[in-house]
Amino acid sequence: MGRYGGVFGRFQERCHGCVKAQNNGTNGVRIDGRPLLARERRCCMKRGAMPGSVAKGSNMPKTSPGNFFEDFRIGEVIRHATPRTVTSGDVALYNGLFGPRFAVQSSDVFAKAIGYPRAPIDDLLVFHIVFGKTVPDVSLNAVANLGYAGCYFRKPVFPGDTLSALSEVIGLKENSSRKTGIVYVRTTGYNQDGAPVLEYVRWVMVRKRDEAAPAPGDHVPRLPTVLDPKVLSEACPPIDVSAYDFALAGSPYRFGDYEVGERIDHVDGITVEEAEHMIATRLYQNTARIHFNQYIEGKGRFGRRLIYGGHVISLARSLSFNGFANAFHVAAINGGRHVAPLFAGGTVFAWSEVLAKSELPGRSDVGALRLRTVATRDQPCADFPLKSGDDYDPSVLLDLDYWVLMPR
Amino acid sequence: MGRYGGVFGRFQERCHGCVKAQNNGTNGVRIDGRPLLARERRCCMKRGAMPGSVAKGSNMPKTSPGNFFEDFRIGEVIRHATPRTVTSGDVALYNGLFGPRFAVQSSDVFAKAIGYPRAPIDDLLVFHIVFGKTVPDVSLNAVANLGYAGCYFRKPVFPGDTLSALSEVIGLKENSSRKTGIVYVRTTGYNQDGAPVLEYVRWVMVRKRDEAAPAPGDHVPRLPTVLDPKVLSEACPPIDVSAYDFALAGSPYRFGDYEVGERIDHVDGITVEEAEHMIATRLYQNTARIHFNQYIEGKGRFGRRLIYGGHVISLARSLSFNGFANAFHVAAINGGRHVAPLFAGGTVFAWSEVLAKSELPGRSDVGALRLRTVATRDQPCADFPLKSGDDYDPSVLLDLDYWVLMPR
Amino acid sequence: MGRYGGVFGRFQERCHGCVKAQNNGTNGVRIDGRPLLARERRCCMKRGAMPGSVAKGSNMPKTSPGNFFEDFRIGEVIRHATPRTVTSGDVALYNGLFGPRFAVQSSDVFAKAIGYPRAPIDDLLVFHIVFGKTVPDVSLNAVANLGYAGCYFRKPVFPGDTLSALSEVIGLKENSSRKTGIVYVRTTGYNQDGAPVLEYVRWVMVRKRDEAAPAPGDHVPRLPTVLDPKVLSEACPPIDVSAYDFALAGSPYRFGDYEVGERIDHVDGITVEEAEHMIATRLYQNTARIHFNQYIEGKGRFGRRLIYGGHVISLARSLSFNGFANAFHVAAINGGRHVAPLFAGGTVFAWSEVLAKSELPGRSDVGALRLRTVATRDQPCADFPLKSGDDYDPSVLLDLDYWVLMPR
Repeated sequence: MGRYGGVFGRFQERCHGCVKAQNNGTNGVRIDGRPLLARERRCCMKRGAMPGSVAKGSNMPKTSPGNFFEDFRIGEVIRHATPRTVTSGDVALYNGLFGPRFAVQSSDVFAKAIGYPRAPIDDLLVFHIVFGKTVPDVSLNAVANLGYAGCYFRKPVFPGDTLSALSEVIGLKENSSRKTGIVYVRTTGYNQDGAPVLEYVRWVMVRKRDEAAPAPGDHVPRLPTVLDPKVLSEACPPIDVSAYDFALAGSPYRFGDYEVGERIDHVDGITVEEAEHMIATRLYQNTARIHFNQYIEGKGRFGRRLIYGGHVISLARSLSFNGFANAFHVAAINGGRHVAPLFAGGTVFAWSEVLAKSELPGRSDVGALRLRTVATRDQPCADFPLKSGDDYDPSVLLDLDYWVLMPR
Repeated sequence: MGRYGGVFGRFQERCHGCVKAQNNGTNGVRIDGRPLLARERRCCMKRGAMPGSVAKGSNMPKTSPGNFFEDFRIGEVIRHATPRTVTSGDVALYNGLFGPRFAVQSSDVFAKAIGYPRAPIDDLLVFHIVFGKTVPDVSLNAVANLGYAGCYFRKPVFPGDTLSALSEVIGLKENSSRKTGIVYVRTTGYNQDGAPVLEYVRWVMVRKRDEAAPAPGDHVPRLPTVLDPKVLSEACPPIDVSAYDFALAGSPYRFGDYEVGERIDHVDGITVEEAEHMIATRLYQNTARIHFNQYIEGKGRFGRRLIYGGHVISLARSLSFNGFANAFHVAAINGGRHVAPLFAGGTVFAWSEVLAKSELPGRSDVGALRLRTVATRDQPCADFPLKSGDDYDPSVLLDLDYWVLMPR
Repeated sequence: MGRYGGVFGRFQERCHGCVKAQNNGTNGVRIDGRPLLARERRCCMKRGAMPGSVAKGSNMPKTSPGNFFEDFRIGEVIRHATPRTVTSGDVALYNGLFGPRFAVQSSDVFAKAIGYPRAPIDDLLVFHIVFGKTVPDVSLNAVANLGYAGCYFRKPVFPGDTLSALSEVIGLKENSSRKTGIVYVRTTGYNQDGAPVLEYVRWVMVRKRDEAAPAPGDHVPRLPTVLDPKVLSEACPPIDVSAYDFALAGSPYRFGDYEVGERIDHVDGITVEEAEHMIATRLYQNTARIHFNQYIEGKGRFGRRLIYGGHVISLARSLSFNGFANAFHVAAINGGRHVAPLFAGGTVFAWSEVLAKSELPGRSDVGALRLRTVATRDQPCADFPLKSGDDYDPSVLLDLDYWVLMPR
């Protein structure tokens, strides 16, 4: 457990179970991007002020206060605002902010040659956009973002696709203090055809509005520690490996060249500026206040704006090109921890370890590497910093466990 | 009158009249984006050095010194450089810089469902791009940007459209000091088909090159204090409200839910960095020097680069999503004041009051709210800060009066 | 020679010869963007760890250490990663970072009217993207970027085009210290059809891995001091000057209005922020470490991140609009020097001198101006700062010699 669990949280770990079983929970729930019937429930529409019943005027503000722990119900489905058409402009800005160099996402020509219709959107950009939509409904009153599990990509996203998101509440557990509770949601991102492109479970510690309110439920879902390889290839079309140009991609190393236990220092470091992380986080329409408001945060615990944890994930992924240039697809995120917060001015380094390798059922084109990528602050990673006694090394920012696909 | 009227100015107010009457002034003036005949007059081409007459060499610099007060003539029409094709890249960067979340501008699918051919460009981005073109010709030698009036949008703009701008000088009034004069221009932005997309009157105090020069005119135009509702729907296609998904848009509140006099605190605050406002202002090709040049401004009145006033307007508009999520179209700006300057490091908050409501002639789909949005610096707006005695509260940056459209 | 030759280097000058002769060196070398046969040699694939021979595990890192002097061979051809589809998003971000206002690159309508199929990508953006690809292979272990020569644009690039790059080693010269050597490469950028879009020679001083290693070659190529006008029009389609709208373009001055020896102060200054130069340099996928890593650079010679020299070139080009608004195409770069480094917080000014004028063989539509553009730091350029005694004025950052095309 990181020493800064309060605000920025950690994600992952004490969770088990099976993605497949969990999936059943959302079967039949559809969103197609086109206007839907209003029968879908949405938090802020069923609580607080409804159009027909609102007391008008300044006594009943129309701003959303977000949901508190007692506002959630198990089985509740939340349709999130705002639908978003992803464009090559988003890609350019993402590239300017993180500098990824993976050939499949950089070049339409390269992507087409191996089997994509064109260059797909970076998986993490898809993740951040979907995640951003959930913030106003799920975590506006969060004390901590506790974890992720069962995150996997189900379909590639291309410029012009429109992303929407929907979350189902799959668990609720009040804390013993009765001041907060843990909310588990399974969030699914959809494209304009109603096809799921991304799915993940997230749990957050949320404040109660009223400590005396009864707990709205008491169920902790079983969650997967690691995703089953059989779901890892959903968002990857068949790859023509003979057409995959390793020189153009930047490295000769393919699936077979990596060994379990191998550690790779990604060498470079990137210093983060305030403007950069705010531009990125706004690009995702993520409105979490701690990232943007120096006036308030200056009086807060850290005296600084906190950088969105996803920013560190994207930096680490870009750095990991140096060592995994052919890991062209992040197929799944098993879990991870934001061990410590990052602030502007910090320089992010990263290293990775190959935790496991897996062939994919029915596929001879690509294989999956399970990676642990550790990002640090102001600490080069030639010595693979991780632990200091029983705790994390003070330089560690992120400990991420995920699957990438590589040509075989 | 703000206390900082000198440099960044204020806009609006002691103006009356009728937009319709004013419009006649530009009847017949056309620009279609395609190369036009040179018979259109343009300031920098008719004064100073013309190709045929220029004394060549370093004694006659080819850089534009901008126009001084005595250079303008009533009735003069200025065609501004540079035509600009607006793209989804511009939209992405605008999103990254301001974080707007209005569904119509974010999603092609949402926009199509309600009646747009695709997601339109954010109205304020259109305004900033058109405004930026006028700076080299109108306000390079300005002491103060005094006001706006009669600003309304006439046609939606989409990615791929090419914007040009033309200004007509509609008023000139020398100040008693004879050192400066006020120039009134009506600026129209056009798309590639020659259709006007935006029109507004702006007046600025401009230095004279030569104090002894005779005043070039003496006419103060009559200008509207508020735009007539009948022009507010020009840039809004018929909206299929049954297809407008309020949950996806982020709020259940529509036109009928707001009351005149209602005040809404937009809650959040956004801290602005130097890189952000410079990137934004360059994106609009706005070359006003005070925004970019720390070397010069460091020796100036404030010791800092001044942030383009339009930056505050865009921030306030983005913040206003929290309270007006369905105000999908800024139809017009009646006027406003830049009460105080903003510098990097300041955190912008905002609140709004509903000044008026209006149905639109012949339309049952949407209605118009007249809003006053007040932006502050380093001052949360739960108490709606505005006045301190007879003057503005010291925290107030912007006092904006505009019309938005909402579904009924 | 600049006083800071060590890290950021200078480029150009003690070089002579003929572009045409040099070109023969790459005849028959092709790259078409589609996956190619692996028979093309590429540095990192022929040295260090190959898939079949690699000792697996942590003892043989898969990160690229870059090439050292003794790794290069004359005649060697290096295919660089990563191919890149350039989009209107890249253009928008470039515009936001530099604020160019040239009409041809800004407006599809303007560009079409004069003979382009649509607005082309800014020439310098093309240069930066191609250059960026060469960094991991050519200059990761560079002590200094010494010079450029024979840089010219061969075909316009449009959004949607995919750029790749290939370099041929055309010269090697060990330094007398035997610790370093100079590597000369001719780099060519290609589009998706295999057509060259840009070509230039660059030479860099590169460290040896092992001082005792024998010199890998000993040849200094003959290089052009200035490009022959006959190659300057390759990337410029026939221009319909009667359709070129000088008012929309922002200036009446055309080729015939400029005289050799004429000096123009570009007046404005632009202050650079850390976020801006890092976003720009990442946009080009340029991974040179000194631009991004404050943790390391903070302990280094300057204590600061160095700004990519190309950033200054792009700023100077944007500033030069004020004086050369119709210089719509950078046709070639003869050479130049990064005289001093730029750091964030510095304000860049610029001035230019017309070094020569040239008609273009077979063309009556456009002519070429050879310009010297000098960029300074924290020094307005009304007095055209350049020399201070025998050395450069301490304010000078860049001394660039290039050809631009203008309508006749």
